[in-house]
Amino acid sequence: MHLQAEIAQQPAVIERLLNDGRADTEAAAAAIRDFDPPFVCIAARGTSDNAGCYAQYLYGHALRLPVMLATPSLHTVYEKPADLSKALVIGISQSGKAEDVRAVLTDARRGGALTLAITNFDDSPLAQAAELHLPLRAEREFSVAATKTYTAQLTVIAMLASALANEQKRWDALAALPGLARETLRHCERIADWTERYRYSDKLVTLGRGFNYATAREISLKVKELTYIASEGYSEADFRHGPIAAIDRGHPVILVAPQGKTLAGMADMTKDLNERDAETLIISNDEDLLRAGTQALPIPAVPEWLSPILSVMPGQVYAMQQALARGYEVDNPRGLSKVTITE
Amino acid sequence: MHLQAEIAQQPAVIERLLNDGRADTEAAAAAIRDFDPPFVCIAARGTSDNAGCYAQYLYGHALRLPVMLATPSLHTVYEKPADLSKALVIGISQSGKAEDVRAVLTDARRGGALTLAITNFDDSPLAQAAELHLPLRAEREFSVAATKTYTAQLTVIAMLASALANEQKRWDALAALPGLARETLRHCERIADWTERYRYSDKLVTLGRGFNYATAREISLKVKELTYIASEGYSEADFRHGPIAAIDRGHPVILVAPQGKTLAGMADMTKDLNERDAETLIISNDEDLLRAGTQALPIPAVPEWLSPILSVMPGQVYAMQQALARGYEVDNPRGLSKVTITE
Repeated sequence: MHLQAEIAQQPAVIERLLNDGRADTEAAAAAIRDFDPPFVCIAARGTSDNAGCYAQYLYGHALRLPVMLATPSLHTVYEKPADLSKALVIGISQSGKAEDVRAVLTDARRGGALTLAITNFDDSPLAQAAELHLPLRAEREFSVAATKTYTAQLTVIAMLASALANEQKRWDALAALPGLARETLRHCERIADWTERYRYSDKLVTLGRGFNYATAREISLKVKELTYIASEGYSEADFRHGPIAAIDRGHPVILVAPQGKTLAGMADMTKDLNERDAETLIISNDEDLLRAGTQALPIPAVPEWLSPILSVMPGQVYAMQQALARGYEVDNPRGLSKVTITE
Repeated sequence: MHLQAEIAQQPAVIERLLNDGRADTEAAAAAIRDFDPPFVCIAARGTSDNAGCYAQYLYGHALRLPVMLATPSLHTVYEKPADLSKALVIGISQSGKAEDVRAVLTDARRGGALTLAITNFDDSPLAQAAELHLPLRAEREFSVAATKTYTAQLTVIAMLASALANEQKRWDALAALPGLARETLRHCERIADWTERYRYSDKLVTLGRGFNYATAREISLKVKELTYIASEGYSEADFRHGPIAAIDRGHPVILVAPQGKTLAGMADMTKDLNERDAETLIISNDEDLLRAGTQALPIPAVPEWLSPILSVMPGQVYAMQQALARGYEVDNPRGLSKVTITE
């Protein structure tokens, strides 16, 4: 099974990026500093778009850089793109073959923007279209559901933030990630013990906030791709603003709630959901919160800004275990292909 | 029932905005032209965030202005906001009481940004916090599910685009809207004839693209707020990239597919969904496509950039009729309040 192997490769991929990718990253950071963009635009689809969502929070937080997510249809369907000439435009695509992401970068580069591709293949169309390329160094991903390329994308994004912020303590924190990722995956082995309880659940909500809003979206997408159930990811704040009305007894909710600034709000949400008799599945490194949930999915202590690289892993494993419990084909879910070339 | 009355008031609200709101809009446009922002940042939650999504497409398309959606938690939870000093920052909130939206505008204004509020109340905190205010002129909305304030927000956004583009033909197109809205609501009366078929459906997907991606999200939210089912809105492109795998026989899918650049892709998607034996509910003004669906929800002919102001209405009525068929309280859905003051 490719999916299981690729989930297990994540610590090694992160380690390879940190060992081999720093010089490229520092060079890209120098070019970006020269260009001095007032804002960043990220073009991506699906899982890569969730990596873009992480960049939106991290670059705002660490670099004060505003980040927008592109509207590819303005480039491809309407052929009336916005003026991105002053922006750093980043295209993220595992395969580097997403046609609409390439169209955004090509239009933007022609207009004068600084363009950067983040893909797994140096010779991919997206890497060729951009001035700068940061490779994922993740080796080929065979499973249709992206796992190791997602955490590799997050790692590249975090490395670039560290280079742009020029802070040694960020690099030190990054250096601990491979070990922490191994520890996270060891904890994940316990998920198989209780996954059958959710064999017949047909709805799932996943919540996160701030840095881990991306994680909530990505876990939700992984579960949907692998088990075909109605699976939605929300910002905890948006969820409280309306969709919480749909939660009643037994509704499974995954809460991505590592220690940090968002922990208090996520703990409040857990309390509210427990009062509604929801099933709360807690991804956290806070002992009290882990005890408050129906299921505990522990991760090790990690600075909040890096936590999304670990906190997605229990969600990946949960999605895979659910697919196995339901007897689904995990490497090639029905109706999906690895590369979708959206025009 | 307030909800039914408020849906019915939409043509009059749009008419009032067009009659009484133009001078304010032209004045705001003049201030924005003076400021000459390289990009726009929109802060909003829930339904108002969907209005922001419309602005993202319209301002890119009509004005070449890049639009980002704000990340309020950087302002409120992390207190590390991005640098928005060069941006036009627009806060959208029906009540004008959304705390986190106000925090974004307050931080941005302090940093030097040009700030604009779009709310229903001149004396609301958000209107007071911003340099410019464009009121919705929608009178008080009693129903928790926002309808007339949503189409009023879209109308204000479209009026501002017309003032900034300084194109008379856009104002001429806007002038036809009240009549077209009345015609749309007359068509919607037929929805009650077939709504019972979906009485026990527990999942809904709503699809749109480009200008009507906002509509897909808003219809999805309305159905979720009023009927508590798993209801998701997608860009047609993103949907094809993964979530389509979950669609099988009988799965209801609303397609927002008016004439324009996105029609061909939406027609292809309808064909694919019909091959999967999904139930396709088509919101369109294209006779061929309306005939291809399980249910036809016609709207009149309208330029694509204004179509979201009409195309949401059949979705509002569908959501209300489903709530009635299920015996739910439509004005005060369980677990929701009109104003959510997210910190």
